[in-house]
Amino acid sequence: MAGGGDELKLLGMWASPFVLRVKLALSFKGLSYEYVEEDLRNKSDLLLSSNPVHKKVPVLIHNGKPVCESQIIVQYLDEVYSAAGPSFLPVDPYERAMARFWASFIDEKFLASWIKAGRGKTDEEKAEGLKLTFAAIETLEGAFKECSKGKPFFGGDSVGYLDIALGALVAWMHTAEVRHGLRLFDASRSPLLEKWVERFGKLDEVVAVLPDIDRLVEHAKVREAEVAAAAAGN
Amino acid sequence: MAGGGDELKLLGMWASPFVLRVKLALSFKGLSYEYVEEDLRNKSDLLLSSNPVHKKVPVLIHNGKPVCESQIIVQYLDEVYSAAGPSFLPVDPYERAMARFWASFIDEKFLASWIKAGRGKTDEEKAEGLKLTFAAIETLEGAFKECSKGKPFFGGDSVGYLDIALGALVAWMHTAEVRHGLRLFDASRSPLLEKWVERFGKLDEVVAVLPDIDRLVEHAKVREAEVAAAAAGN
Repeated sequence: MAGGGDELKLLGMWASPFVLRVKLALSFKGLSYEYVEEDLRNKSDLLLSSNPVHKKVPVLIHNGKPVCESQIIVQYLDEVYSAAGPSFLPVDPYERAMARFWASFIDEKFLASWIKAGRGKTDEEKAEGLKLTFAAIETLEGAFKECSKGKPFFGGDSVGYLDIALGALVAWMHTAEVRHGLRLFDASRSPLLEKWVERFGKLDEVVAVLPDIDRLVEHAKVREAEVAAAAAGN
Repeated sequence: MAGGGDELKLLGMWASPFVLRVKLALSFKGLSYEYVEEDLRNKSDLLLSSNPVHKKVPVLIHNGKPVCESQIIVQYLDEVYSAAGPSFLPVDPYERAMARFWASFIDEKFLASWIKAGRGKTDEEKAEGLKLTFAAIETLEGAFKECSKGKPFFGGDSVGYLDIALGALVAWMHTAEVRHGLRLFDASRSPLLEKWVERFGKLDEVVAVLPDIDRLVEHAKVREAEVAAAAAGN
């Protein structure tokens, strides 16, 4: 739990992988917090005033002071609660730089390609997105090998920054598998990440915050229908 | 200079604002290094093997180990050479989170909009880019007020992470002014940033590494002609 009378409030949306990053970080640090679910079509005044620049979740409000953007929040929690739970960032500056490098890669290459595969405007764009997604996964397989050094997690023996950054996408990966039979981390393409996903998903701290896959599948179907209807209306 | 037999090598391209961030950081830390100019149309084996993921400059090679991406390199230098020159990141975790937040904003909103203003495919796209650029500058004016707390720099009394992140774009701002009469930071829109630009540009550590504006103007003209020719050829 948060010590010294600390007040932690998280503004989130249950299906967001970015919000899940913060939930995972709070879970691993063993911090208690108030969770506020936002309706993203009707954002609260608190969200708009806490994140006037991007108007997006997640926002972590710590003793009245807002911190925005998932990766920045995770680093913030790691620095403020350095004594609680595992350290997410390594101590060594070079390893820290590598963790930050791969965290950027996860968002800018892996996730961006995967979004393109799902939301591309043409079949060609979707196919290109999927190809880039698989290429990014092969690169991430190498990153896991490099960072974990034969240990179970990106962070070594305990969960680190990259486990949280990538692990927050695991529920959506399962959703893609249920809906499209698309298994992103499989034994042939990324044997180390396939085992990592399984290992990570079984941790108590993860199980406690991971969204329900069935609910996520339904959510994805509804969203997709909405996007298709909006596109047809143009 | 780099202490303890440290070997620092920077792979760069003289006109790149991202490379300039690293040069600025090295300059403020007072570190000596070997600079290697890359021909981006014929990248060296060293660049390709040091940054196989993005194949981009800047790459800082520290005792044989490569670090990529400008903001990550600046944080790395700050952590490794914490005793040299000013600390770029603040000590307080909340202020650190704010510095990281605004650094992301500079790249993802301000710079991205400005690039759109220059390279948009249609006049409408360019106008939209310019509008977003001005909106981002107004937001940055507020960020300066918040971070500097009445002191001369984003970092307070000394230059910090955001001074370097934004300051690396100053030469290109001057270039835009010379070429298009476009003054991005002016007294009406951003009086604090207008004074900051002037103050920052006069620092010895900045003067020592800032590229020549005339040369940058020529470079921009040639690049623009190339882009136009390539577009016409499509």
